[in-house]
Amino acid sequence: MNQQNLPQGVSAQSISLRLGHPDPATLGTPQFREAVANVMASPQVQQTLAYGNEQGNVDLIDYLVSRINREQNLNLSANNVTITAGSTNAVDMIARLYMRAGDAVIVEAPSYVDSLHVFRDHGVRLYGAAIDDEGIVPSELERLLKQLASEGNKARLLYTIPNFHNPTGISASEERRIAIVELAWHYDVLIVEDDVYRDLAFEGAVPPSYLALAGDAHAVQIGSVSKTIAPGLRIGWMATSAERVQCFVDCGTTQMGGGANPLAAQIVAEYCQRGYWDAHLDSIRALYQQRRDTMLAALERYMPSQVRWTKPAGGFFVWLTLPENLEAAEVKEEAAKRGVLVASGEGFFVNQGDGQHHLRLTYSFASLDEIDKAVRILGAVIEGKTT
Amino acid sequence: MNQQNLPQGVSAQSISLRLGHPDPATLGTPQFREAVANVMASPQVQQTLAYGNEQGNVDLIDYLVSRINREQNLNLSANNVTITAGSTNAVDMIARLYMRAGDAVIVEAPSYVDSLHVFRDHGVRLYGAAIDDEGIVPSELERLLKQLASEGNKARLLYTIPNFHNPTGISASEERRIAIVELAWHYDVLIVEDDVYRDLAFEGAVPPSYLALAGDAHAVQIGSVSKTIAPGLRIGWMATSAERVQCFVDCGTTQMGGGANPLAAQIVAEYCQRGYWDAHLDSIRALYQQRRDTMLAALERYMPSQVRWTKPAGGFFVWLTLPENLEAAEVKEEAAKRGVLVASGEGFFVNQGDGQHHLRLTYSFASLDEIDKAVRILGAVIEGKTT
Repeated sequence: MNQQNLPQGVSAQSISLRLGHPDPATLGTPQFREAVANVMASPQVQQTLAYGNEQGNVDLIDYLVSRINREQNLNLSANNVTITAGSTNAVDMIARLYMRAGDAVIVEAPSYVDSLHVFRDHGVRLYGAAIDDEGIVPSELERLLKQLASEGNKARLLYTIPNFHNPTGISASEERRIAIVELAWHYDVLIVEDDVYRDLAFEGAVPPSYLALAGDAHAVQIGSVSKTIAPGLRIGWMATSAERVQCFVDCGTTQMGGGANPLAAQIVAEYCQRGYWDAHLDSIRALYQQRRDTMLAALERYMPSQVRWTKPAGGFFVWLTLPENLEAAEVKEEAAKRGVLVASGEGFFVNQGDGQHHLRLTYSFASLDEIDKAVRILGAVIEGKTT
Repeated sequence: MNQQNLPQGVSAQSISLRLGHPDPATLGTPQFREAVANVMASPQVQQTLAYGNEQGNVDLIDYLVSRINREQNLNLSANNVTITAGSTNAVDMIARLYMRAGDAVIVEAPSYVDSLHVFRDHGVRLYGAAIDDEGIVPSELERLLKQLASEGNKARLLYTIPNFHNPTGISASEERRIAIVELAWHYDVLIVEDDVYRDLAFEGAVPPSYLALAGDAHAVQIGSVSKTIAPGLRIGWMATSAERVQCFVDCGTTQMGGGANPLAAQIVAEYCQRGYWDAHLDSIRALYQQRRDTMLAALERYMPSQVRWTKPAGGFFVWLTLPENLEAAEVKEEAAKRGVLVASGEGFFVNQGDGQHHLRLTYSFASLDEIDKAVRILGAVIEGKTT
């Protein structure tokens, strides 16, 4: 997902509202470079550069366990968390170890395009459960669970992004989460909670996690530093039952390569233990909140009245719904010609047609002026196509 | 694969001939730390810490392409190489993208235990082709290929470790490689050449690679810096056809997480471009050659006459064949009680029983004195059990 991979014919001077990337200016801070220097100067550096403990860097696990317990009011132990090579590696391991080709996986409609892709690479069958402004609609999920059970292809896994959802930016309400957990218990479905945006809440605490509500036997929570420290480290984690962590530790890739990214994990542990992550989060939350505010204000100002959009309380994304007579792909193409890059909705749905009137806008990557300008251009493109 | 994970009841003071790890003393050299410092001080550091180019770090790809072309007399382009998170990630991607549960994969008998594990996690069926001191026995491979074809489960992939093979230490002769390639062409089997030990040749150049002999349409070559720079970086690569590289780039995990380990890859690129890898290889080849010599001399001195062993020309491993009345598992257990850790043969075979009279000894990890002492103890254990 490199910024350099632009659509053909698009100049690098375009404004990108396209990708879920942190602002590069937030990466490689003096505190981060200090953490790297400390790791390299440590007498333990040779151990850090060897094959790592299979479960992952123990300092980082300890840090994460106490953080998760504090923030989510849980009582996890070190054997409930394993380090992964980003959330990507987590989703892939879950699919590899708990799914077989043909198995049914339920995802939100829409959901994160690249996770759908990872699941598809394992040959699983994906089914989309409708969401609204409060998250997955329980009656829709139940209908789908019943239907799959009656077809003899019981759903085994529900993949959900509860906080500042990709692509819509919405967060599931506590009431909804409780209803979803009850369905997951009843139908014996594992909840995979991809929670990589949880640290980017602009307006107070997020609701209780699925891990907390469902219990670690029924949920895997995925976290990452990619959105808040640096994606180039490839460091994430899973929190779940000790039994499931042991399964990840015992699998072929972990036994072959050892724990995930030992050097990067030690750098993250050093950075976090010094308190730099929390300070950095305060700073980037303020940055991204300002960008969200600018984007929402620009949408109010420039969008034709038929266009609707979400109002995220954190994360990176706003989701636009266009009038039914407008094709998102055409708007995307025309906007790109005018120097504004956005993602159109099709790829985010199991049934691609469901996304043809949607656009995802990212406010994490562009400056305030660029956001205002890009939304103004996008508004003009949409206006031009509706009239 | 962590050194700390010792069998129960075994003291950390034991001598380990057990794991395929580089000597930790060879890691984190001043040159390596210089490379890290240069990367962190570079004006490009924010780009390095962002999501990486999907195919992998372009500087490292350029370096590897010219190195591979020079050493293997090839004419690859940049689109023939992709960076992976170690050889582990390479084997896993191949299994994920080119295999489905139930597909037939042929491996050497014996082969690398953890690769077998990765393949098994994908539900593929493994079949072992016999090897001798010159590599895979072509008549045995052909028999297996015919048998699988007649059963309607045509083999799709041959996984082989041609140089300084894990676990036996043997290298396939050029004549054998040519015969294997002809079979692979005839039966349309993809050769996956796991070549992570090729840089550790003690006695001149290795024979032509499968990639060179079979052509990139018929082979994937896997390389890694784990044995020679640092396993904790998790950096490897695949060299194959441009079409297959594009498939790896287009897959879900690459699209989701970007190219493999951007920070670590930039460090390796910086280290290699400065010529530090070549100089380091000279130094560690001398180190490991001395250890191999010490182990072979100790085996001559201490082993009962009924024991046979391989004489590797590079890499990390010697493979012992015990008399048929001796169980490797019992020898391993007794040796561990006396402070010597070795790997017994069972796990290296598809049919575990085939390994019950074999031991793998690693000379990369222990000092010369420790190697001599450990082989002396092991000889006494075997002597005690044969008389």
